[in-house]
Amino acid sequence: MTELLAKKRDGGTLSTEEIDFMIQGYTRGTIPDYQMSAMCMAILLRGMDERETLDMTMSMMHSGETLDLSPIHGVKADKHSTGGVGDKTSLVLCPMVAATGLKIAKMSGRGLGHTGGTIDKLESFPGFSTAISEETFFRNVNDIGIAIIGQTADLVPADKKIYALRDVTGTVPSIPLIVSSIMSKKLASGADVIVLDVKCGDGAFMKTEEDARRLAEGLTRVGRLAGRKCAAVITDMDQPLGYAVGNALEVKEAIAVLRGEAQGDLLELCLTLGACMMAEAGVALSVQEAKLELMETIENGSALGKLAAMVEAQGGDARAVYDPSLLPDAPLKLEVYAEQSGYVSHIRAEQVGLVSMHLGGGRATKEDVIDLSVGVVLRKKVGDRVAKGESLGTIHASDPQKAAEAYGMLRDCFELSAEPVETPPFIKAIIR
Amino acid sequence: MTELLAKKRDGGTLSTEEIDFMIQGYTRGTIPDYQMSAMCMAILLRGMDERETLDMTMSMMHSGETLDLSPIHGVKADKHSTGGVGDKTSLVLCPMVAATGLKIAKMSGRGLGHTGGTIDKLESFPGFSTAISEETFFRNVNDIGIAIIGQTADLVPADKKIYALRDVTGTVPSIPLIVSSIMSKKLASGADVIVLDVKCGDGAFMKTEEDARRLAEGLTRVGRLAGRKCAAVITDMDQPLGYAVGNALEVKEAIAVLRGEAQGDLLELCLTLGACMMAEAGVALSVQEAKLELMETIENGSALGKLAAMVEAQGGDARAVYDPSLLPDAPLKLEVYAEQSGYVSHIRAEQVGLVSMHLGGGRATKEDVIDLSVGVVLRKKVGDRVAKGESLGTIHASDPQKAAEAYGMLRDCFELSAEPVETPPFIKAIIR
Repeated sequence: MTELLAKKRDGGTLSTEEIDFMIQGYTRGTIPDYQMSAMCMAILLRGMDERETLDMTMSMMHSGETLDLSPIHGVKADKHSTGGVGDKTSLVLCPMVAATGLKIAKMSGRGLGHTGGTIDKLESFPGFSTAISEETFFRNVNDIGIAIIGQTADLVPADKKIYALRDVTGTVPSIPLIVSSIMSKKLASGADVIVLDVKCGDGAFMKTEEDARRLAEGLTRVGRLAGRKCAAVITDMDQPLGYAVGNALEVKEAIAVLRGEAQGDLLELCLTLGACMMAEAGVALSVQEAKLELMETIENGSALGKLAAMVEAQGGDARAVYDPSLLPDAPLKLEVYAEQSGYVSHIRAEQVGLVSMHLGGGRATKEDVIDLSVGVVLRKKVGDRVAKGESLGTIHASDPQKAAEAYGMLRDCFELSAEPVETPPFIKAIIR
Repeated sequence: MTELLAKKRDGGTLSTEEIDFMIQGYTRGTIPDYQMSAMCMAILLRGMDERETLDMTMSMMHSGETLDLSPIHGVKADKHSTGGVGDKTSLVLCPMVAATGLKIAKMSGRGLGHTGGTIDKLESFPGFSTAISEETFFRNVNDIGIAIIGQTADLVPADKKIYALRDVTGTVPSIPLIVSSIMSKKLASGADVIVLDVKCGDGAFMKTEEDARRLAEGLTRVGRLAGRKCAAVITDMDQPLGYAVGNALEVKEAIAVLRGEAQGDLLELCLTLGACMMAEAGVALSVQEAKLELMETIENGSALGKLAAMVEAQGGDARAVYDPSLLPDAPLKLEVYAEQSGYVSHIRAEQVGLVSMHLGGGRATKEDVIDLSVGVVLRKKVGDRVAKGESLGTIHASDPQKAAEAYGMLRDCFELSAEPVETPPFIKAIIR
């Protein structure tokens, strides 16, 4: 390992065998943390070429179990997002795509963060469970086109270990390391088509469009070299996605979009990601045509029907899909009023996430219990005109003390400008 | 620490407080190995400016005890070498310099390597001991101008810990890390004048003269900023220094030089280093003048007298200084004959060191016992003409099996050329 460190330090290229030795050795514990952290820093500063990145991805993928989706008929599609506040994309995208005939077999974790993960959000449906057997999971996907299961297999243990180390050694922002981390998990999850949502901007990992494009190209190239269909969408992130941040609140927003009652960035993103999936899967001739087909699943109610079918098949109360008042609802609602007039120029997404966290909507440690009802619903987005005294957003809280503390926090998330603000295009690029 | 890692990773400059937090935290164990190793890699690839290097040196120096040489009258001088095979410089230089009136108060370790350290070599004098009290040590230096003591104080624990980590993480060859490692120890040892022998070439850390010059300048600048007088000499290392490699064999060669019986690179190096010490100490007007004064200590026997006085004062048999046959002598002597004629173009120093090691002259682990009598005496140096069948060198061994194995090893150290070889200048530069 010391030799490999010297090689990478001096700008050399590691062979397939060397990379596998390093990844398997580190996963098994024969290579110590202090050597792997120095290697991560060397990779961050010296880079890795495409072959090395692919080898690292494949070696990580094979560090544990992989999911074999072959019992499922048809084309299996999956998506990944580099992470954003208010990101309820899966809740909208997956039912829409399933309604077109593609298969969604999603394995998900809970994760830590400002809100829960997709599983936590879906648990807003009373009775809903992801603790289903693989057999039920496969049967549901074959029958209704969509199912979501909690993580059962020991997928990519190498990534868990390497990511924990990168997190405390300043070695997170490296494109080859990010690519191998994301793609090893996506490849291990078994989908044929993988579409990636790469966020770019102030609140995202990738600050500039150029960096986001490099990451998106890295991700899609590795996916293709591994034999999967891949596309990526680069999206702007200078505000939360959509309006709601919080578990049940995000489910309600997703339902509103699936009912055709909401427009904006969230719908645009879901249409674009879904259209890329369909085009990559070969079931649509173009992204533009696929978008029309996806809009059709909203208009004819089939997307909402897929969500209801999945909730029902996994033990949840599907009536809530058609009557969201059955979903958790916080007792306290506070409007946050603008202290002056102007145009919203920026909404600090990270900070809005912290408000949701503060209200009890997120999880700082694995043991924390999430309050599904709490969160924030924005009333204004970037570019909107605001009059003094108008509401910027609503705080949904269970505890009056926390609600009061969240009030000022949420107001500080908004930046207002005296001049009208031109909103940048939300979808910056599609990489196919 | 994660913040400091990100700062250095992105090419930033660490503050005095940040560097001290890092060094003291790592020494005390509150910062883990995996963060420090990533930091070493970031420093290696991003560099450190002069202020950072000085701060790191000072913080490391203060990580443990420091030696207070104030009980010693006069100017205290010390030297350091970046390491070479056959390096018996201290054995010649220190007595010469002490004979001119400068004070040599040396704290030394045993170390691992192809031969023992200076302490091991001096133990070739029957009865000689460095296990003397600090009181005796100071008194001897005041009385006779020279003493050597085994490491008593807990000098620079930060360096022990950091060096062990660098050794296994590919982070040894970094100028700021080398400078802080060397200079923290030299500063902690308390001398007023520090002269550094920076080796350059194939067998050395610094392969090119340019790199060696950068290191030499880094070392001397940090020393001066810390308030000491400093100079450095850059020397060529494409062969072992002098002729002997092995403990008692090197003592014999040192005695021969002090008796005025040997010339060549070893004498030239000792004259140059000693002259730099004298010029820095302000006891000579020029390096050239100081060299003449040092030659005088050989011609009038005062340097040899200082060696004898030190050996006597530390319990050794000083008669051996005047009669080297009293020193350990290996029972077996084998000549290694040239298989063809030519001119010596290169002698692989590292490889000659391994021969000495193989014969039992070095220590691979702390517990190994050294055979002081064994080693190699070269008969030819770079540039010399060799006739087929002439001896290239003599193997001094205790064990016939090992002697036989060493035979081929030593012959392979010599590279011969059909054309006459021009020897490059041995002293490449003096940095003052």
